Amino acid sequence: MDPQPETHGQPGRAHEREFVRMWDELEPIGRDRSTGGYHRYAWSDADLLLREWFAGEAAARGLELTDDGNGNQLAWPADAELAGRGDAVLVGSHLDSVPDGGAYDGPLGVVSAFAALDLLAERGVRLDRPVVVAGFSDEEGSRFGIACAGSRLLTGSLAPDAALGMRDRDGLSLAEVLSARGRDLAAVRPRPDILDRVSAFVELHVEQGRGLADMDAAVGVASAIWPHGRFRLDFTGEANHAGTTLMQDRRDPMLAFAAAVLAADEHAREAGARATFGRVEVLPGGTNAIPSSVRAWLDARAPDEASLVALVEAITLQARGMSRRDGTGLDVTPESVSAAVSFDTALRDAAAALLGGAPVLPTGAGHDAGVLSQHGVPTGMLFVRNPTGVSHSPYEHADPDDCLAGVRALADVLAHLAAA
Amino acid sequence: MDPQPETHGQPGRAHEREFVRMWDELEPIGRDRSTGGYHRYAWSDADLLLREWFAGEAAARGLELTDDGNGNQLAWPADAELAGRGDAVLVGSHLDSVPDGGAYDGPLGVVSAFAALDLLAERGVRLDRPVVVAGFSDEEGSRFGIACAGSRLLTGSLAPDAALGMRDRDGLSLAEVLSARGRDLAAVRPRPDILDRVSAFVELHVEQGRGLADMDAAVGVASAIWPHGRFRLDFTGEANHAGTTLMQDRRDPMLAFAAAVLAADEHAREAGARATFGRVEVLPGGTNAIPSSVRAWLDARAPDEASLVALVEAITLQARGMSRRDGTGLDVTPESVSAAVSFDTALRDAAAALLGGAPVLPTGAGHDAGVLSQHGVPTGMLFVRNPTGVSHSPYEHADPDDCLAGVRALADVLAHLAAA
Repeated sequence: MDPQPETHGQPGRAHEREFVRMWDELEPIGRDRSTGGYHRYAWSDADLLLREWFAGEAAARGLELTDDGNGNQLAWPADAELAGRGDAVLVGSHLDSVPDGGAYDGPLGVVSAFAALDLLAERGVRLDRPVVVAGFSDEEGSRFGIACAGSRLLTGSLAPDAALGMRDRDGLSLAEVLSARGRDLAAVRPRPDILDRVSAFVELHVEQGRGLADMDAAVGVASAIWPHGRFRLDFTGEANHAGTTLMQDRRDPMLAFAAAVLAADEHAREAGARATFGRVEVLPGGTNAIPSSVRAWLDARAPDEASLVALVEAITLQARGMSRRDGTGLDVTPESVSAAVSFDTALRDAAAALLGGAPVLPTGAGHDAGVLSQHGVPTGMLFVRNPTGVSHSPYEHADPDDCLAGVRALADVLAHLAAA
Repeated sequence: MDPQPETHGQPGRAHEREFVRMWDELEPIGRDRSTGGYHRYAWSDADLLLREWFAGEAAARGLELTDDGNGNQLAWPADAELAGRGDAVLVGSHLDSVPDGGAYDGPLGVVSAFAALDLLAERGVRLDRPVVVAGFSDEEGSRFGIACAGSRLLTGSLAPDAALGMRDRDGLSLAEVLSARGRDLAAVRPRPDILDRVSAFVELHVEQGRGLADMDAAVGVASAIWPHGRFRLDFTGEANHAGTTLMQDRRDPMLAFAAAVLAADEHAREAGARATFGRVEVLPGGTNAIPSSVRAWLDARAPDEASLVALVEAITLQARGMSRRDGTGLDVTPESVSAAVSFDTALRDAAAALLGGAPVLPTGAGHDAGVLSQHGVPTGMLFVRNPTGVSHSPYEHADPDDCLAGVRALADVLAHLAAA
C-alpha cells in the first residue's frame, strides 16, 4: 500500500524521498490493523495526530501555519504578504476518512501538495504568487453526517449554528466536541477575508472509479462534479413480538425500507445514476422484535439536477407504496444536497494542455474543490489513476509511479498558476 | 401501565396489595424514561437489581433461595424436604426483557407466582407438595443471542462451553461477564438433580397476540408452542465509493438483504407462518460507502417443523437469486432452532376445566416452559389477555383485572397440582 520511489533515471530525488517519508508517517495513524482500513474522524484522536503531522510538514518547509477557526489548516509561505493581495494559489485536500476507508482518499492530495512544493524548489522555479497548502477539516462527514463541513463553514454555505448543533452517533454535538478539544466556538464562522486572498484552488485526488484505468492514463483533469444528495429516510411502524404477531397485523417498517433499497438500485441503473443505502439503524434491534423504526440514509447522485430529483422521487414513491400497504410511515429529510459543479474551464483546459492532453472526466464524488468552486473560487482537480476503481475501502489503491506522476503534474499546474 | 387492585367486593385483599406492591417495585428497574420501554439484559446492572428483588420476595415469604449455578433463581418452601422427593411444583417465569421491551413479558409470571402463593395462604389451602417459585435467567437472549439460555443450561440442552463462549455486542463472552460478576464458571452445568425433584411446571405469561381478546376471555391455557428458529444471514460484498462506482460494477450486499426481507414477508403470509428481520448490522456503515457486509437475523416460526424448513428455504432461495446477480455472498447459520412443543395434555385439560372451560390456544413465542416440556417435565402455561396483542414493546399491556384473574387462575392450578 506504500508508494515507493521509482528512479526513472532520477535516483532518490528529494521530493520522491519526501513523498515516501510522509506516506510512511501517515500510514499507522487511525489504521485498523485487522481490516487495514482507516478510521480518521473529525476531531478524533487520530484526526488530532493528523493535524499535528500537517503542522510539522508546514514547519519543516518554513511555512506559517494558520487555522481558519473552522479547523481548516492553511500553510502560508513566510514571505507571503499576509494582507491585501488576492493572488494566493491554494493546493491541498483533506486527511480524514470514511469508516474503514482507504489510505489515498484525501491524504494523497495533501502529501502531493507538499511534495509538489519540494519538486518546485528542486527545479528552482520562481513562484510569483504565494502557494498555500490546505488541509480541509471533516471532508467525509463520517462523524457528524455533513460532508465538506470545513470548507462549507469557510465559505459560509454551512451556518455555524447548524454545524455546531450537528451530533455524532454518540449524541455529542460538534460544539461539545470542539469545546472538549479546547477550541474557540466563536471562531467557527465564514472567512471571506481568507477567500478574498485566493486566486485559485487545485485539489489532487485518487480517482474513485476506473475512468483513467480504462483510458490507460496515469493522471487526468476533472470536468465537473455530479449533483449529490444525502437523504435520511425514517420508516416508522410498531414494535411487536416477532413470533406471535400475525403477518397481516404487523406494521413492520423494514418492508418499506427493503422496497426503497431495491427501488434505488433499479432506478439508478435506469437513469445512469448512483443510489446507495450504506447506513441503517433499526430500533429496538432485537432478533425477536418487529422493528418500531428503521432509519436509513440514501446517497444519490446523477449527471444533472433534474435527474437527481427524479431519481429520489422514484425511490420514495416506490417505498411509499409499501408503506401504504403496511400502515407504516415514511419521512424523507434532505440532509445535504449539492448542486452540480463545473470546474473553471480556463484552469481545466490549461491543466489538460500542460499535462500533454490528459483526459478530462467528470466525477460522482463530492470534494472541497466543489465547495470552493460553487463559492466562485477558480478551481480545478487532478485525478490519479486507480487501477481497480475501488474507493472508500481498505482496498483503495494507486500505484507508486502514478502517485509520483501526480506530484509532477501538480507541480506543473502550480508553476503555471503561480507565475506572475 | 400499573395494575391497580380492583375491589370486586374483596377490598384490599392481601394478595392484591402484594401484587401492586411488587409491580410498583419492579416498575423503575431498567426502564428507559424516554420510551417507557425496558432494557433488562442478562447480568446487566438492571438484571442484578431484579435478582435482588427476587431474593427479597423469597425471604419475605420465608422461602429458601437457591441458585442452580446457571443463574436460575429457585425459592423453596422452608419445610420442603430438600432431597429425595420428586414432587415439587415449579411456578414462575423470567425477569429479563428484549431491548425496549414491555413490563409484562416475564415479570407478570414471577409476580403472579408470588401473589398466587399469597392467595393460597389467605385461602388457608394446604399444599401437600412443595411449591417452588422460579425466576429463569436470560430468557429473551437479548444480550447473547440464545433464547432461554438459563433453562437450556439447567436441562442440558445448551452445553456449558457453548454458553460460556457466547458473546454480546461489545464482544464480551458470557464467561467474562459471569467472572466479572464474581460467579463460579464451574457451576454452569446441567442440573438433573434439581429437575428430578420437579413433578410439574406452570408458567403464567401475558398473551403475545390477540387470541384471548378476540375470544373475550381474561385467561387461557396454552396448547403448544410453534417450532421456531433464529438464523443469521451474512451477506457479503465489496465496500466502495457510493458516488463513483457504477451500479453495474457494484457488489452491494444490501440488495440481497432487501430481497430476503421482502421474501420473508411474502412466504410467511402464504404459509400462515411468521418471519421477521429485526436486527441488522451494516459494515462499514458510512452514508457514502457501499456496504462490504450486511449481517441480519431472521426470526422464523411456523405451525409445524416441515413448514418452518420450507419457509426458511424459500426466503434463502429468493435472496440467493439476487446474490447471484450481484456477485455477492450469502451464508446462512442457524443460531437456535426449537422443535415444536405440545404441553402436557393432562395438565392442560385440568387447567382448562378448573378455569371454567378457558380457551386453549397455541403460541408462536418460545418460553422456558417449552424448554422444560421438551426435557420431559409435565408443563403447562396460562395466558393473560393482552387487549392490543402488542408485545416486545413499551405498549405491551394487560388490564389490572385480568392480571388478578390470572393470579386466581394460577392459584387454582397450583392448588390442584400440589394436592397429595
